[in-house]
Amino acid sequence: MAIRALIFNVFGTLVDWRSGVAREAERRLQKRKPGVDWGAFSDAWRDQYQPSMERVRSGETPWVDLDTLQRESLDGVLTKFGIEDVSDETKAKLVQGWHKLDAWPEVREAVRSLRKHHLLAPLSNGHVRLMIDLARRNRLRFDAILGAEFSRDYKPKPALYLDAVRALGFTPQETLMVAAHSNDLAAAASHGLATAHIARPREYGPGGGETAPSVPATFAAADLADLARQLEV
Amino acid sequence: MAIRALIFNVFGTLVDWRSGVAREAERRLQKRKPGVDWGAFSDAWRDQYQPSMERVRSGETPWVDLDTLQRESLDGVLTKFGIEDVSDETKAKLVQGWHKLDAWPEVREAVRSLRKHHLLAPLSNGHVRLMIDLARRNRLRFDAILGAEFSRDYKPKPALYLDAVRALGFTPQETLMVAAHSNDLAAAASHGLATAHIARPREYGPGGGETAPSVPATFAAADLADLARQLEV
Repeated sequence: MAIRALIFNVFGTLVDWRSGVAREAERRLQKRKPGVDWGAFSDAWRDQYQPSMERVRSGETPWVDLDTLQRESLDGVLTKFGIEDVSDETKAKLVQGWHKLDAWPEVREAVRSLRKHHLLAPLSNGHVRLMIDLARRNRLRFDAILGAEFSRDYKPKPALYLDAVRALGFTPQETLMVAAHSNDLAAAASHGLATAHIARPREYGPGGGETAPSVPATFAAADLADLARQLEV
Repeated sequence: MAIRALIFNVFGTLVDWRSGVAREAERRLQKRKPGVDWGAFSDAWRDQYQPSMERVRSGETPWVDLDTLQRESLDGVLTKFGIEDVSDETKAKLVQGWHKLDAWPEVREAVRSLRKHHLLAPLSNGHVRLMIDLARRNRLRFDAILGAEFSRDYKPKPALYLDAVRALGFTPQETLMVAAHSNDLAAAASHGLATAHIARPREYGPGGGETAPSVPATFAAADLADLARQLEV
C-alpha cells in the first residue's frame, strides 16, 4: 500500500540536539565553569527527558510542555556538573537553546522533496511553539504540527499515534512513522502504522546512535534523503 | 503592544465557501435536478453549520469533525431542494467539495507577506485535514493548524482561543484573531486577544456579508492585504 503521509520524530531524527544544546550551554556557562564537557552536559540533560515525561504519562501530573519539563530537570544537571549561581534568566535561555537546534545536513532538501507527494507533520514530544521555532530556523515546511501538545500526552502513549492518523486522514498503513529510535517505531507499528528507521550514528556524539532498527521496520534508511529515494520507487 | 501571531477564521474570511460549494453541487447534481439555485443550496447547507456544531458544544455528542457534521446535515438540504436518490459516493464527494474552496483573491499574497514577521495559524472550526487541503490548494503557508481538532470542541468555546494563545507562546494581547465575523472577534476579545475584522461584503453572495465590525475591534480592514499594510506601520 502506498505511503501518503509521513510523521516525524524530531529530536535525533531531524535535528542534532546534542551539538546544539552543548553550543548554547558553552556560550551561556563557560565563564562560570570552564572546562566542562558540554556534550556530556547535553547528554545528562537529555537523560532526564524520559523520567520527566513519565510523570505526565503516568497521570502523576497534568500535561505540561517540554520547556517546563526541561526547566525542571535543568537544576539537577547544573548541580551534577557543579555549576552554581545560575540566574533564572540564564536558565530560561538555556531552555530556549532547545528551540535553536540545527537539522542534520540532508534534512531540509529531503523534507522539501518528500512534501511534493506526501503530507508531512512532526510527531514529537516537543510542543507546538518548539516545533515552529525549529521549522522556521531550518526552513522545514510541514502541513501540520501533531504530537505531544496536540494529544496532551507524551510518546509512546497510543493517543499520539492514533490522533495523528486521524488528523491526516489516511489509514494507519498509509501513514509512515519516521524515527531514528526503534522504540518509537515499535509503538507506531503496534497501532498498524508503517515505519521507517533513519540511521543516526552520531546522535549521541562519541556515544553513537542507532545505525539500524532493532525491531521490524517497513523501511530502513541511511538518512532522510535515502528514505525519500526509497519512497520514490 | 506589538502583534506577534495571527490566528485566522477560514470559512468566509480566507476562502469563499459559497461559490466553491455551489460549483461542486452544480457539477455533481445538475443532471439530477436542473434549475436549482446552487448558491442558495450553499446557503442552506451553511445554515446547518451552527446547529450541527451546537450538539458538540453542548456536550450532547462527543467531538466529531466537520466532514461528519456536513455529511449529516446534507441529507436535509437535499430534501429541502427536492433532490432525490443521491448515492453515498456522490454525497461523500459533495462533502469533499468543502476541501476544494478558493481563497479570496488577495489572500495568498497577504498571507505570504504577513508570515515574514508573524507566526500564522488557522483557528477554524474545520479539522486538520480540511485545513491542510485548503492550504495546499491555495498555497497558503501556516506555522501550525489550531482550532477545532486541536481543542476537540467548536468556536466560540473558550478552549479554542485559549489553546491557540498557549500554543503560539505569546500573550493574548500579542495574538490577533482575524475574522470577517463579529461574533468570532467578540469571543476572542473576551479572552484578551487582539482582534482584526476583515470586510467580506460578498460572503453570502446577493445576501451580502459583514462590511464592518459590529463590536469593538483592534483593527478593521477592507481585506487581508489592507490588514497587512496596517500591521506594517
